[in-house]
Amino acid sequence: MSTLPSHLAALVGKSVNEIDTPSLVIDLDAMKRNLARMAEFAKKHNVRWRPHAKMHKCASLAKAQMRAGAVGVCVQKTAEAEALAAGGVHNIYISNEVIAPAKLARVAALARHLAAEGGKLAIAVDSTEGVIRLAQAMNDARTASGVATVIDVFVEMDVGQGRCGVEPGAAAVTLALEIRKHPALHFAGLQAYHGKAQHIRSAQERRDAIAKAVQSVVMTRQLIEAQGMAVDLVTGAGTGSFLLEAASGVYGELQAGSFLFMDADYARNERDAAQPPFEHALFVKTQVMSTHAGHAVCDAGHKSHAIDSGLPMVHALEGEAELEYANGGDEHGILRATGAGKRLPGLGQTVWLIPGHCDPTVNLHNAMIGVTGGLAAGTVQRVYRVDARGALT
Amino acid sequence: MSTLPSHLAALVGKSVNEIDTPSLVIDLDAMKRNLARMAEFAKKHNVRWRPHAKMHKCASLAKAQMRAGAVGVCVQKTAEAEALAAGGVHNIYISNEVIAPAKLARVAALARHLAAEGGKLAIAVDSTEGVIRLAQAMNDARTASGVATVIDVFVEMDVGQGRCGVEPGAAAVTLALEIRKHPALHFAGLQAYHGKAQHIRSAQERRDAIAKAVQSVVMTRQLIEAQGMAVDLVTGAGTGSFLLEAASGVYGELQAGSFLFMDADYARNERDAAQPPFEHALFVKTQVMSTHAGHAVCDAGHKSHAIDSGLPMVHALEGEAELEYANGGDEHGILRATGAGKRLPGLGQTVWLIPGHCDPTVNLHNAMIGVTGGLAAGTVQRVYRVDARGALT
Repeated sequence: MSTLPSHLAALVGKSVNEIDTPSLVIDLDAMKRNLARMAEFAKKHNVRWRPHAKMHKCASLAKAQMRAGAVGVCVQKTAEAEALAAGGVHNIYISNEVIAPAKLARVAALARHLAAEGGKLAIAVDSTEGVIRLAQAMNDARTASGVATVIDVFVEMDVGQGRCGVEPGAAAVTLALEIRKHPALHFAGLQAYHGKAQHIRSAQERRDAIAKAVQSVVMTRQLIEAQGMAVDLVTGAGTGSFLLEAASGVYGELQAGSFLFMDADYARNERDAAQPPFEHALFVKTQVMSTHAGHAVCDAGHKSHAIDSGLPMVHALEGEAELEYANGGDEHGILRATGAGKRLPGLGQTVWLIPGHCDPTVNLHNAMIGVTGGLAAGTVQRVYRVDARGALT
Repeated sequence: MSTLPSHLAALVGKSVNEIDTPSLVIDLDAMKRNLARMAEFAKKHNVRWRPHAKMHKCASLAKAQMRAGAVGVCVQKTAEAEALAAGGVHNIYISNEVIAPAKLARVAALARHLAAEGGKLAIAVDSTEGVIRLAQAMNDARTASGVATVIDVFVEMDVGQGRCGVEPGAAAVTLALEIRKHPALHFAGLQAYHGKAQHIRSAQERRDAIAKAVQSVVMTRQLIEAQGMAVDLVTGAGTGSFLLEAASGVYGELQAGSFLFMDADYARNERDAAQPPFEHALFVKTQVMSTHAGHAVCDAGHKSHAIDSGLPMVHALEGEAELEYANGGDEHGILRATGAGKRLPGLGQTVWLIPGHCDPTVNLHNAMIGVTGGLAAGTVQRVYRVDARGALT
């Protein structure tokens, strides 16, 4: 059999112009500015930050965030935690519920692994059954290994999202008391993440939503403290609202992750004046593969970018045609001219897209190509592996 | 460093109940019936079939289709063709335009590779520039290797989709004549795929759409034949319309791919009486991870299934609660009861989802878990690797 050449979309040292399409490209200069802004914000507000790594799914970027001051990262899935741990990230919070006994056995094994590395695993719960199963898995792991490990457990409260989490108040107290019964579990505090608030466009309405969340947290914390238990930490907040949680005096840890890359959806939020001015740092590089009288077709469809938060925006570089992106299916995008003269790009021309939602967009790619010196004439500096891509379980 | 156990979502021989969640599961019994129905249809109508492998992205399934009578497979991307070729698939049609010279060099290398394996590569074009660049790449490869290879080239016509493809008529003739100039290119015929028609719900409106496409093809074919060129083959058709193209007497090759798995979107089409009754064969296995008064939360969000053609449907097995799936974000689904008694599933219970669109759903997964004996009590028979997952370039 004759051999096929292997194919990489980009090699370090090459020009941005040589990056194959469609590819996910990070503007590293913009990303580093975003990272510095968040680090400065957290320091100024004296709040911990534990960015959500479900967004970038990349151990290298997680470690870069920790070098900048993050206490660790959040993930949503056990398999994500495993992938990042394998990449050397040792302080991980699974900010989500795990119920299946087979998965909880993996959680317990990971807790032991991270402890051995000098780090720690944390997890969220929202049911008594979940607490009992987690304790069982931790005890089984202890019996099998002879090593006792403690896992941090946060009680997740529903503060307005209507998804997971117990109701604020008595239900949260019940769970805290249940956690206290099990020596392998340490009640670490409350998770009060308001997912819906992240995408409320009006700054005032976001303030109202988070104010309600804060009230729920304060009330619940008092009830737990009345049981003689300390609530060491309240964790939550995303890129859309974190400055509100930071200012609350109640939240001690921010989970915002998308700030690093920003996406078209977060950019549609009315920005609170106090929020750092994050820049778009994540792009899909695509090129025109077919031209027509009224439209051009590019080689990026929704296998290249997620569309749950809307279609990508076209990011016109200086001198480039202004375009609108319409859905062309899994592998194609339809470009229409919107600017003066209704100019369309020619065959083979590069077009840059800003994804609607960064998290599920990153999940579609095996690698992110880091560029310095700008999108027009920059250089590939580093290729980041998406370690936890497809880590669903 | 202590070691982490590796994790597979399923092992051959295990019960379906042991498959981790969320996972992509193929009901192999249903899939085999779908495959047999299409093979029988093609035989009865004396038409070639070349199923689109952009759907399953899996060399094993491509080869299973070819054993059942398919002449080869279609793909949309050069990297998909490479991944399937590496998996032993030797007859591949890139039913899409390739414009970048670096990509065309890979196309030329692949053409040589497949010829050496006794197979063949074909590709679509819709511009003179595209033909010239393709010929250049084929010539460069010949010069470099000393091996002359011929690639089959189809002229893509826009028969109603409004995406790629030249207008029917003179523009297609121009391209056919251009192809004839280049010894490394063989004009193989016309691609006339009507993507939009696939999802027209009304059977009558689909018939009208394909009737127009057929008219365009007949007219264009006559013009090309008037230039003394043969139009050996007209290729096109998807799962929503293929029986119409097959009955046209004009299309010689069907590209339908989704029939193998079927999805919620295709099931919403009014079925033409003559169409084989394809069954749903692709499911996301998910489980309940959080329960509430009015809803349950499962562990499959839109990182587990594509939502471009709508949210997944819940597939209730016998005796199971009837549920509706609502979007819960990247990693969660919100389940609400719709059946009698408004029963909700309990913590840890399995829920089966039928994805809205199979192609981009498969692309989210590394593996598809093949089960025989049904979803309720079956056995894992085989784990299929999604060879071309993320093969975007």
